[in-house]
Amino acid sequence: MENRTYTADAEPGETVTVAGWVHEVRDLGGIAFLILRDTTGQIQVKFEKDEMDDELVETGLNVARESVITVSGDVEEEPRAPTGVEVTPETVEVLSEADTELPLDPTGKVDAELSTRLDNRTLDLRSEEGQAIFEIRAEVLRAVREAFRDANATEINTSKIVATGTEGGTELFPITYFGEEAFMNQSPQLFKQLVAGSNIERVFEIGPIFRAEEHNTPRHLNEATSIDFEGAFCDHTDAMDVCEQVVTAAYEAVAENCTDQLEALGITEEFEVPETPFPRLSYEEAIERINATGELDEQLVWGDDLPTEGEKALGDDVGGHYFITDWPAEIKPFYIMDHEDGELSTGFDMMHPRMELVSGGQREHRREELIAGFEQQGLEPEAFEYYTKMFKYGMPPHAGWGLGGERLLMTMLDLDNIREAVLFPRDRQRLSP
Amino acid sequence: MENRTYTADAEPGETVTVAGWVHEVRDLGGIAFLILRDTTGQIQVKFEKDEMDDELVETGLNVARESVITVSGDVEEEPRAPTGVEVTPETVEVLSEADTELPLDPTGKVDAELSTRLDNRTLDLRSEEGQAIFEIRAEVLRAVREAFRDANATEINTSKIVATGTEGGTELFPITYFGEEAFMNQSPQLFKQLVAGSNIERVFEIGPIFRAEEHNTPRHLNEATSIDFEGAFCDHTDAMDVCEQVVTAAYEAVAENCTDQLEALGITEEFEVPETPFPRLSYEEAIERINATGELDEQLVWGDDLPTEGEKALGDDVGGHYFITDWPAEIKPFYIMDHEDGELSTGFDMMHPRMELVSGGQREHRREELIAGFEQQGLEPEAFEYYTKMFKYGMPPHAGWGLGGERLLMTMLDLDNIREAVLFPRDRQRLSP
Repeated sequence: MENRTYTADAEPGETVTVAGWVHEVRDLGGIAFLILRDTTGQIQVKFEKDEMDDELVETGLNVARESVITVSGDVEEEPRAPTGVEVTPETVEVLSEADTELPLDPTGKVDAELSTRLDNRTLDLRSEEGQAIFEIRAEVLRAVREAFRDANATEINTSKIVATGTEGGTELFPITYFGEEAFMNQSPQLFKQLVAGSNIERVFEIGPIFRAEEHNTPRHLNEATSIDFEGAFCDHTDAMDVCEQVVTAAYEAVAENCTDQLEALGITEEFEVPETPFPRLSYEEAIERINATGELDEQLVWGDDLPTEGEKALGDDVGGHYFITDWPAEIKPFYIMDHEDGELSTGFDMMHPRMELVSGGQREHRREELIAGFEQQGLEPEAFEYYTKMFKYGMPPHAGWGLGGERLLMTMLDLDNIREAVLFPRDRQRLSP
Repeated sequence: MENRTYTADAEPGETVTVAGWVHEVRDLGGIAFLILRDTTGQIQVKFEKDEMDDELVETGLNVARESVITVSGDVEEEPRAPTGVEVTPETVEVLSEADTELPLDPTGKVDAELSTRLDNRTLDLRSEEGQAIFEIRAEVLRAVREAFRDANATEINTSKIVATGTEGGTELFPITYFGEEAFMNQSPQLFKQLVAGSNIERVFEIGPIFRAEEHNTPRHLNEATSIDFEGAFCDHTDAMDVCEQVVTAAYEAVAENCTDQLEALGITEEFEVPETPFPRLSYEEAIERINATGELDEQLVWGDDLPTEGEKALGDDVGGHYFITDWPAEIKPFYIMDHEDGELSTGFDMMHPRMELVSGGQREHRREELIAGFEQQGLEPEAFEYYTKMFKYGMPPHAGWGLGGERLLMTMLDLDNIREAVLFPRDRQRLSP
C-alpha cells in the first residue's frame, strides 16, 4: 500500500493514512473513539458526531470489530488517548468487513481454549501475546543462526523424504514415493554427519522433523523444528560448548531485541539470560542428587533411565540449564561413541529445569564399530549403506547435537503447552489448519 | 579438538597442530610432501627422509589419500609451497584411515558423473567447487533473511504435513498419518496467507516443499526449498518490489562475502549483481517480443501459456532478470486476484533468462470470490474451510510470492543441473542418500 503509515510512526502534526483492524469502538454519545490496530500497535480515531460528515461517522462507528479499514486524517496530540495521539479522520474506507460474531476475542479480554485458538490462528495471532510469541520465535532463530556462524558452522538443508529412518522403523510416518515406500525424516542425524565428513566440517540445520509418536502431551509434537549441529574434529565437550553458546545467544538476543514482546507476555521481570558455563553433571551425580531429593518413591539405581519426575526433581535442585554427561552406554543410541572404558557413553543431554532440550554426543566414526551397532540394534546395515559407505573414505571424529526448537521457546517463555510455540501444530488429533 | 589450528591460520614461527585430510602425497626421493586439507584450505607438510624419524616418515607417506590425520610441528616460510608456508612435522597421527580406492577424486583432477558425486556426497564435497556451492547457498539464505527483515517481514515455519493440498490432489505425496490420509505440503501458500491476516502482517518462510511431479529434468526437484513471502496491505507491485530487493540482496552478499568461493567456481569475472529495477513486461509485451525474435515455429497468440523455448528466447532478448505481469486471468491460479476488468490477473512471474524463478501476485481476499474459485477449480470448498473461514474475520488485501531456492542458486552460479545446488536431491530415481 502506497503512503501507509504504521500506527507507531504517526506523529502529531502529520497527515497520515493508517490501515489495520478495528480493535474496538467506544461510543460516548456526542463523541466516539475507534481504536485501529496494526502490526506496530494501536491508534485512536476520534469521531465528533455533530461536527463531522454523517456518512463518515456512520462508516466508522458501524463497522464490525476486526474489520479491516484505512483511515486518513490529521494526527494530533491527545494525552488521554492510549498512545498519546489521535487521528481526526477525513476519510474512512472499509477494505474487508468482519462477521459480527467472532470465535474468539483477539483483544484478550475473554480467554479462549487452546483448541479454539489453534482452529482460528489468524484471529488468535491478532492478540499481543500471540504476535509476541512468534516475533520472539523469529528472533530466536535469527540469533541461533548467528551464533552458529560465529562457531564457524555452515547452514545446510537436508532431505525430509528418506528411504530409511535414523533409528529404525518405529515412529516413522510412511510416504508413498512414486510407488516406493519412503518415510518422513525423524532427524537429520545421518545427513549432517555425512556433510560434517566433507570439507564443510561444521554444519547446522534448522528444519522440520516428523515423529509418529503416540504421546499426546503438552510437550510433544508430531512435527517439530529441530535445531541441529554437527562438527568434524569436535568431541562431546566441544559440542557442549557450542550448545551453551547457541542457547545463551538466543536468550541474549531476546533480552536485547524483544523488550516489547516480553512486556506483552508479562514476563519482563522473570526473563533471565542463563549463566554460563552450564553445570555438567555426570549421570552418576544426577541419580545421586535425584535420590537425595527424596521426591521419588523408589530410589534410582545405576543403569536406570531418568524418569520425568526425576528430571523435574533434579531441575528444581539445579535451578537452571545443565548438562547430564557420561550416561551408561546402553541407554544411548548406537551411533554415539563410548568412552574408552566401553561402559560410559560420550552422549549428553542438556536440560532445562522443566524438561530435556538437547541430546548429543561424539559420534562413532569407526566404520566397523558403527556397522556392529546397527546389527546390535536389529537394523540391517545394508539399508544404511549410503551412509556407512562414506565412513570408508576418511570420516573424521565428529560430534553434535539436536535441540528442540519449540521446547527452547516453551521453556524460555514459560508457555504451558508446546503448541503455543507452533503456528499450526500437528498432533494425534490435529491435522488442520 | 583442543589446540587445533586451521591451515589458513598457520603462521610462520608458530608451532601448530593441524588436522584434516590427506589431499595428496608427492614423494621426490629424499624429500616428500604431504598436502593436508581442511575446511579453510591446504598446507604443505615436509618429510626429509634422512633427517627424520623413520616411523614418522612412514606414517606420513604411507597413509592413503583422504585419510584423516593430525600433524604437529613448526610452521616455516617456504615460497615454493602452495600457500607460502610449510610444516615440519614432529608427530603425525592417523585418526581415520581411508580405503585406497575412492569412488571419485575430490581433488577434481578426474571428472566424475553427477550420479557418482551424489552417491558419494561426503567425498564430493571435499572438492573446492562442492564446498563453494554450499557455502554460497548458506550465505544466500543469510542475506535473503536479512533482506526480509529489512522489509519488516517476520520469519515463520508452517506445517509440512497437511490434510489438503494447496492446488488440489495431483502432484501430492500421500502420507499415512495415524491411519488418516494426509499429504506433504506442496507450498506454504495457504498458511502464509493465514498468518499475513494476523497482526504479524508480513511473513517469510524458507522451507522444504514436496511435489510429486513426474518431470525428471535438470531443473526439477521433487523436494525443493521454497523462499516465500506474504504481506498484508501489499499489492502485486509491493510484492514485486520486495522480490527485487531480496534477490538483489542475495547477489550483493555473495559478491561481497564469497569471493573465494566464486574463485573456486571460476566465475569471478562473470558474476554480476543484477541491476534494479528489473524490467516489468506485461504478458502482452512478452508474447509480442517472443514472436518478434522469430525463435518459435508458431507465433504465440493472446491466451497461450509461454512455452519453455519462448521463455528462453525472451530471456536472451531481455538479458537479465525481469517480471512478466498482467497475465490472462485464466492462466493464473484461482487464489490470485484479478485486475478490475476481470480479464487480467495481478499474478506475476519473475524470470531469469534461463528459467522462471518466482511466481506471485495479489491474493483474493474476498471470501465469496475465493470460494467460487475453489468450485471453479473442481475443489471442494468444505475441505478448505479451515482456510476460507478466516476470511470471515477481516482478511486484509495481501500479496506475496514464492521463489525456488535451488533455481536461484542454479542461475546465480550457472550450474548445469539443479541437483548440484542440493545436498541430497530427491527425484524419480533418487531416494538416498
